Amino acid sequence: MSRIILKDAYIITMNKCRQVYEKGSIVVENDKIIKVGELIDSDLTDAAEIIDLKGKIVMPGLINTHVHMSQQLGRGLADDVDLLTWLRDRIWPYESSMTEEEQYISALACCVEMIKSGVTSFAESGGFHVDGLGRAVDEAGLRCALARSTMDSGVGLPLSWRESTDYTLNKQEEAFEKWNNKGNGRIKYWFAIRTIFNATDELLIRTKELADRHGTGIHMHIAEIPGEIDYVKERTGGYSTVEHLSRIGFLDKNILGAHTVWLTDKEVDLFRLHNVKSSHNPAAAMRVLGFAKVPEMLKKGVVVSIGTDGAPCNNRMDMVDEMYLTALIHKGRTLSPKTTPAETIIEMATINGAKTILREEETGSLEVGKKADLIVIDPRSIGNMPQHDPVSSIVYSMHSTNIESTMCDGRWLMKNRKVAVVSEEDILDRAEEMAEKIRKRAGIVIPDRFPTIR
Amino acid sequence: MSRIILKDAYIITMNKCRQVYEKGSIVVENDKIIKVGELIDSDLTDAAEIIDLKGKIVMPGLINTHVHMSQQLGRGLADDVDLLTWLRDRIWPYESSMTEEEQYISALACCVEMIKSGVTSFAESGGFHVDGLGRAVDEAGLRCALARSTMDSGVGLPLSWRESTDYTLNKQEEAFEKWNNKGNGRIKYWFAIRTIFNATDELLIRTKELADRHGTGIHMHIAEIPGEIDYVKERTGGYSTVEHLSRIGFLDKNILGAHTVWLTDKEVDLFRLHNVKSSHNPAAAMRVLGFAKVPEMLKKGVVVSIGTDGAPCNNRMDMVDEMYLTALIHKGRTLSPKTTPAETIIEMATINGAKTILREEETGSLEVGKKADLIVIDPRSIGNMPQHDPVSSIVYSMHSTNIESTMCDGRWLMKNRKVAVVSEEDILDRAEEMAEKIRKRAGIVIPDRFPTIR
Repeated sequence: MSRIILKDAYIITMNKCRQVYEKGSIVVENDKIIKVGELIDSDLTDAAEIIDLKGKIVMPGLINTHVHMSQQLGRGLADDVDLLTWLRDRIWPYESSMTEEEQYISALACCVEMIKSGVTSFAESGGFHVDGLGRAVDEAGLRCALARSTMDSGVGLPLSWRESTDYTLNKQEEAFEKWNNKGNGRIKYWFAIRTIFNATDELLIRTKELADRHGTGIHMHIAEIPGEIDYVKERTGGYSTVEHLSRIGFLDKNILGAHTVWLTDKEVDLFRLHNVKSSHNPAAAMRVLGFAKVPEMLKKGVVVSIGTDGAPCNNRMDMVDEMYLTALIHKGRTLSPKTTPAETIIEMATINGAKTILREEETGSLEVGKKADLIVIDPRSIGNMPQHDPVSSIVYSMHSTNIESTMCDGRWLMKNRKVAVVSEEDILDRAEEMAEKIRKRAGIVIPDRFPTIR
Repeated sequence: MSRIILKDAYIITMNKCRQVYEKGSIVVENDKIIKVGELIDSDLTDAAEIIDLKGKIVMPGLINTHVHMSQQLGRGLADDVDLLTWLRDRIWPYESSMTEEEQYISALACCVEMIKSGVTSFAESGGFHVDGLGRAVDEAGLRCALARSTMDSGVGLPLSWRESTDYTLNKQEEAFEKWNNKGNGRIKYWFAIRTIFNATDELLIRTKELADRHGTGIHMHIAEIPGEIDYVKERTGGYSTVEHLSRIGFLDKNILGAHTVWLTDKEVDLFRLHNVKSSHNPAAAMRVLGFAKVPEMLKKGVVVSIGTDGAPCNNRMDMVDEMYLTALIHKGRTLSPKTTPAETIIEMATINGAKTILREEETGSLEVGKKADLIVIDPRSIGNMPQHDPVSSIVYSMHSTNIESTMCDGRWLMKNRKVAVVSEEDILDRAEEMAEKIRKRAGIVIPDRFPTIR
């Protein structure tokens, strides 16, 4: 039995009353939080590791609800290009050229970047080599909704990605058996739908049946671009993506819709009615998709959380930056400086994230009985001083470098900025070497931006 | 005579042809660049300090064209509040309570944050204790367009800020005599107008005459909010801010307009016609003002550069983040992923910045004869790998922590992440202590965001 005591910190609990302790302590035993608040003598057992956190902030680990781990090595591969070039000439050829080992390293690099930016839980939207991804998450020690990319139709797909409905569903069930509840239960296996462009109604309906039978969730890109809505209207005789999903009984509390940029008011109501969760990805959305109606969705009671998306369309896989962006862009869009205030942003990045990945009983807040998923912030730095409003500074001025330590499931994944679970240097070496090899193998040439003397 | 040789770097010159050297060198002698490109034996004199920069990137120092140094200690003082609360209940009482010594420390802290995020030149929009600000800039070693806040009218101003037209103009001339060309010519003194709300036509016209007579520029907030346009229309019988400034002969090539969010197409044409420069401040604009029409202005040939604004409305005083924001938000606003590509963003943050502060002969690019104002970037980090597109990664994935060293006027202001000109720790200590004292003195109370147990 191990016991860690985090002593005298500024604690943002995100519990039901959203209490903050100006000077409080947390006791962690094995993987769980057994106390939040004031210590008594008997808490201080001999075996306890006591960490003095005076001047530091402790809050729940951040939850990133939309990630493509297998795209991490493709960062910078498709900047400033239109969506079709992005997909068909750059990312699809790249991602489909990767081996399982390469997706494993890609996923490890992605996990390290997340750990360093305070993430303890995340939802993977699905790569192809799910065993490579699962292995990386297991080693990295993160909490994860793992998924495999699933498509049974669509124009322009790489050959190796074309699978029949039966085949792709069987693959998912196999992966469920193998990965669900692995790593002390940290890993849950989810079903996935890439987009409605790549899913027949049969795949949608059977995936929903399977997810319900196994008691798990479904991760799907929904209402990403106007062209998607046009396509679905033509396919269904006039219904939009969300309307169609509602009509076939797909919308439900276990659905995670990524992006959800192009929702009408009526569709927001459908999300609320069926308790569908939304993952807002501000950087990726601005890159290619447009502004989602986040404050409007929150006001109607939809659970909206925050995600980074994948490295080739973000390109910062950094939840601290995503909090900052979420806080800013909806103020600019609605011309109201009170929109999406700091406390709302922190809710979105913690407890709403936990609801989105269907794990609010386990994580998303610092409460007795929950898993010890937390981060320690050192607010003291020239770019984050002074601390007139500590909660707000987390959203508006802090960078991920202010995150000193990251704990998941009671284990330090990073301590004092040093990643504890893997060798960051080794992964960096291997990732950089592999990234270039894959690009050459996939035959991708990126034009010079400036005249270059070689 | 000192000579520094930066050897074998990836060099982004931003010269007229925008040439990039995949592997090039730069020779710095005293404060100037005397060579860019390939070294020959005779470059390597005995006295030269040779720095091997294999795998590193060298580019011009970033130019921040809108800064409030005296607001640095007010960061986090007015988040998520409307503009009137921001001004009258928080920032004005705070800033007007500060002593010269406090503005000096505020300015030093601001300079350190800028140095750490790769800034070598900036335009100050005007604090009150200009001697404190000037002293800080001189010590910090940055290139600066220094200014004093100037107002001769307006509703709700703090008592200590109310000055007559004659008095405020005299103060500016005194400051010009004292500060212009100080610090090996690094500091140029500019005239300033806070906003049209706070300037009579007499002040505007006489300021323009003075600036022209002294051959310097004028820094002014222009077209910040819709209410400004309404106010000016009422004051002038139907003309907007920019139209009015044009009619009184104020618009000219030596005018730096900060924000310029609410320009009509006709007003953009007036900017172009008179060669007025614009400073785009994306974070601050999103916080309270709205989205400026940046791609449209650039397309019409207006010089648009990038600024951070002050710490209470940004709150990251980080030009690397501002580049990232500028690249993203105009894509989202125009729904075009090709808008404001990485190369345009780098132009805005370097050579356009130099044009904005009227110093393109001296800085903004790496060219023989220009001042040695440059930064060294170490692109290798888990959050910035791989380097499929090095120019683009500077804009889309790099953080300011990737900036390894900053040189201005041939002097290292930061080397290997260590600030060389002042003690960062000392400033941090003094700044944090002062910041709280000023808040208490100004009687500002910030409400709790969450129920807080003390």
